[in-house]
Amino acid sequence: MAKQPRTAITPTRAENFPEWYQQVIKAADLAENSDVRGCMVIKPWGYAIWENIQRRLDAMFKATGHENAYFPLFIPMSFLEKEAQHVEGFAKECAVVTHHRLEPDGKGGLRPAPSAQLEEPLIVRPTSETIIGATFARWVQSYRDLPILINQWANVVRWELRTRLFLRTTEFLWQEGHTVHATEAEAREETMRMLGVYADFAENSMAMPVILGEKTAGERFPGAVSTYTIEAMMQDRKALQAGTSHFLGQNFSKAQDIKFQSEAGQLEYAWTTSWGVTTRLVGALVMTHGDDDGLALPPTLAPAHVVIIPIAKSDDDRGPVLEYCDALRAELAGQQYDGEPVRVRIDARDSRDRKWQWIKKGVPIRLEIGPRDIAEGTLTPARRDSAERPPKVARGDFVAGVAATLADIQRSLFGRAVKSREAASVRIDSLAEFEKFFTPKYEENPEIHGGLAYSHFVESPEMEEKLKALKVTIRCTPLSGGDEPGRCIFTGRPSTRRGVFAKAY
Amino acid sequence: MAKQPRTAITPTRAENFPEWYQQVIKAADLAENSDVRGCMVIKPWGYAIWENIQRRLDAMFKATGHENAYFPLFIPMSFLEKEAQHVEGFAKECAVVTHHRLEPDGKGGLRPAPSAQLEEPLIVRPTSETIIGATFARWVQSYRDLPILINQWANVVRWELRTRLFLRTTEFLWQEGHTVHATEAEAREETMRMLGVYADFAENSMAMPVILGEKTAGERFPGAVSTYTIEAMMQDRKALQAGTSHFLGQNFSKAQDIKFQSEAGQLEYAWTTSWGVTTRLVGALVMTHGDDDGLALPPTLAPAHVVIIPIAKSDDDRGPVLEYCDALRAELAGQQYDGEPVRVRIDARDSRDRKWQWIKKGVPIRLEIGPRDIAEGTLTPARRDSAERPPKVARGDFVAGVAATLADIQRSLFGRAVKSREAASVRIDSLAEFEKFFTPKYEENPEIHGGLAYSHFVESPEMEEKLKALKVTIRCTPLSGGDEPGRCIFTGRPSTRRGVFAKAY
Repeated sequence: MAKQPRTAITPTRAENFPEWYQQVIKAADLAENSDVRGCMVIKPWGYAIWENIQRRLDAMFKATGHENAYFPLFIPMSFLEKEAQHVEGFAKECAVVTHHRLEPDGKGGLRPAPSAQLEEPLIVRPTSETIIGATFARWVQSYRDLPILINQWANVVRWELRTRLFLRTTEFLWQEGHTVHATEAEAREETMRMLGVYADFAENSMAMPVILGEKTAGERFPGAVSTYTIEAMMQDRKALQAGTSHFLGQNFSKAQDIKFQSEAGQLEYAWTTSWGVTTRLVGALVMTHGDDDGLALPPTLAPAHVVIIPIAKSDDDRGPVLEYCDALRAELAGQQYDGEPVRVRIDARDSRDRKWQWIKKGVPIRLEIGPRDIAEGTLTPARRDSAERPPKVARGDFVAGVAATLADIQRSLFGRAVKSREAASVRIDSLAEFEKFFTPKYEENPEIHGGLAYSHFVESPEMEEKLKALKVTIRCTPLSGGDEPGRCIFTGRPSTRRGVFAKAY
Repeated sequence: MAKQPRTAITPTRAENFPEWYQQVIKAADLAENSDVRGCMVIKPWGYAIWENIQRRLDAMFKATGHENAYFPLFIPMSFLEKEAQHVEGFAKECAVVTHHRLEPDGKGGLRPAPSAQLEEPLIVRPTSETIIGATFARWVQSYRDLPILINQWANVVRWELRTRLFLRTTEFLWQEGHTVHATEAEAREETMRMLGVYADFAENSMAMPVILGEKTAGERFPGAVSTYTIEAMMQDRKALQAGTSHFLGQNFSKAQDIKFQSEAGQLEYAWTTSWGVTTRLVGALVMTHGDDDGLALPPTLAPAHVVIIPIAKSDDDRGPVLEYCDALRAELAGQQYDGEPVRVRIDARDSRDRKWQWIKKGVPIRLEIGPRDIAEGTLTPARRDSAERPPKVARGDFVAGVAATLADIQRSLFGRAVKSREAASVRIDSLAEFEKFFTPKYEENPEIHGGLAYSHFVESPEMEEKLKALKVTIRCTPLSGGDEPGRCIFTGRPSTRRGVFAKAY
């Protein structure tokens, strides 16, 4: 057997993190760029991860009382003009539909038919607050119609100049929750409930620790009163916003005229929220758990928990080995992990590279099985979260313990991510220290810097200017941590809470 | 209690079928028109039916070896120019994106920024053969890469002049399967396999009988070599194309350059297929099973199998009745129907209209439960497929038999639909009879005509002209039925098979 290269992915994370990211996506066959600028093709392995994300989140949304619905892809341009801050934030870079027919151009090609120009251009939704709000205005008459708790799984388009697979693409997939409430308290409660659902999902399904916090005024969703976020730290110590939940107050209900008759008979504007996560979560999985051999998937979201690789030394072996593997597959699939049958694949292809393909794809457990394993009744399960030489175990013990092993891998990935985040989280109380923290450590590794800085701050032009110069952003004010008097490191003004600062995706 | 009107839906099917259809959709809260011309809002009850359709079909696709993936919403205009017949069929009425930014128009509004005009317009996908084909051309190098078996769940846009909820909307939801094969035989086999999956789904999940057949040349998918269809008959005796499966030959692989190195080392064009069903299936459910009281759902696809309506005569009753209903709900949910837990809802709202709301929504079994039922330990389950006065049954018997009852409702809906189709299916051997068959029977009921005519035909301009005048189309040449010599009723030419003719959606 040829000696394996030191790592399956070139370059390594330490050598060039952004390039490593692209190479992992390629090696794991998650997605690729398409023929349309900024739009990606999500390949089966990447899409299967997204399906698992969807299935679990969808169940959590339904368990908290939400129903799915579907609203138009297009938004009339005039709708975007209604909420002033919203239009400021969203209306600029978007796909604009201006014609509804093509015609021959007389040169053997096609052109938009001048006679089929739309009276009012349509915008491909960058988010749906306006079109859904207009619908809700029809649905809501009385307090008896409230709350309305709706979620939509959809594609959205934001015209991005610089794109990166999963993290920032012109078209992406997401879910957007939209709810309407009779009181401010209920809407605020809903906002926090869904932030909690996202945090639960990130930590328990994605094995990705997150900080729950509130965005500052400068980082709020356009039109929101308050924006809450879950922030994760990637292995290059950059932060990634993994989900947001917005308390919209009455801003959108006033813009869209969502009014209801209260129990007391008054006509009142409703209170609304919205919240969403996107396919960027797949990118977050890559950068949280991947290593220099490729992707490493948390079992809960892995399209396959176990891959079985039959190794036949001769043609005579082939039949019995495949039969043995198939019986084992059935036995494993009869086990339950995390409330679902264990997902097993057999890779019986005639290819030398099988083992490394599945390592790069991040499958939690690999089983290479040959005639000797069969004769001995043992297995040598290799864990994707460990580089140690796998021990031999009795076949029955492995099957009986497979769910526990998967749970252990899930825990170990989470633990590793927590440790790496904690190691890069620092309380910083001076601007000099802050600047040093965010200055790349090595000339040849411009990406490697400090991590997450917890510092006192007061929003100000001085702070904004300094952050811009350092290419650092304020991620959020963490919800936990509590009040603590201090002084803004940028201006010296008194502050009551620390914020989390980081370079970010 | 106020006397119920004769029917919950006005008008009845016999009075005005198209208007009845709209009223059922409204009464069952399935969907509504949106603020965007031709685009609908799919409301929670309608979307839950679509989710059930998706879940079951998705499992069938995966069981036949397909994987899901996702491709761009946008198609470069030049892609549509490549396959000549395809562009003829699809490129005309579509949403054309010409700009990627809005800017203030100087009058307080917005406009597409002239400086942000796209070099090449993008088309919002009306179907994805071209963009997916271009991707497959990159994926396929060798016979070892084949077959490629991909499905996509997505939204598509076809600019329709006259729209009707679910049946014909500018934007709709669908799945599109796209596969690539090394040989013609394999591609043809795949085409027929997926037609079989659709027929299985239509008959066993939707309880909707279908005719499997091949489309004539004039009705083929643009660019296909052969188009196969499942055709259903609605209660107004119009046909509805419920799903299609296309054998594309090498037309798209030549247009998109999908080539592979064969086992013999030759460079060959691949063979492709595509197949799809859409949200129009929800409309088909309405028109197949609905009655003058509203929707009637086949249990397999119903968002709720059983609705429990607690009836408390006094405030004192309320607590115990709700408690009893909740215990019953849990017991029912512990039963399995069709491989899934029985789906139960309790409607404890303070509304007199509850019973009729659930009738109109088509829930298969209703249980109104009051103190007397509790005291007696009996239930009075009302079946949506029957107008008979429901019998009293012991609570335990009902719970133990709920899956059997649901299966019986599923069978009864299918049987009723088969009967109604058979009653309206006629072999016709003369043009005079054919014309009479398709002439509306009553002045006041312009929609009611014969139904499905099985007649000999040879495609010809004479036939086309006659059909156009009668507003009749040829639906397909049925796969079953076999060869049978005869003469074309339009031209007298010899023919070997009968076709199915009908007015159609």
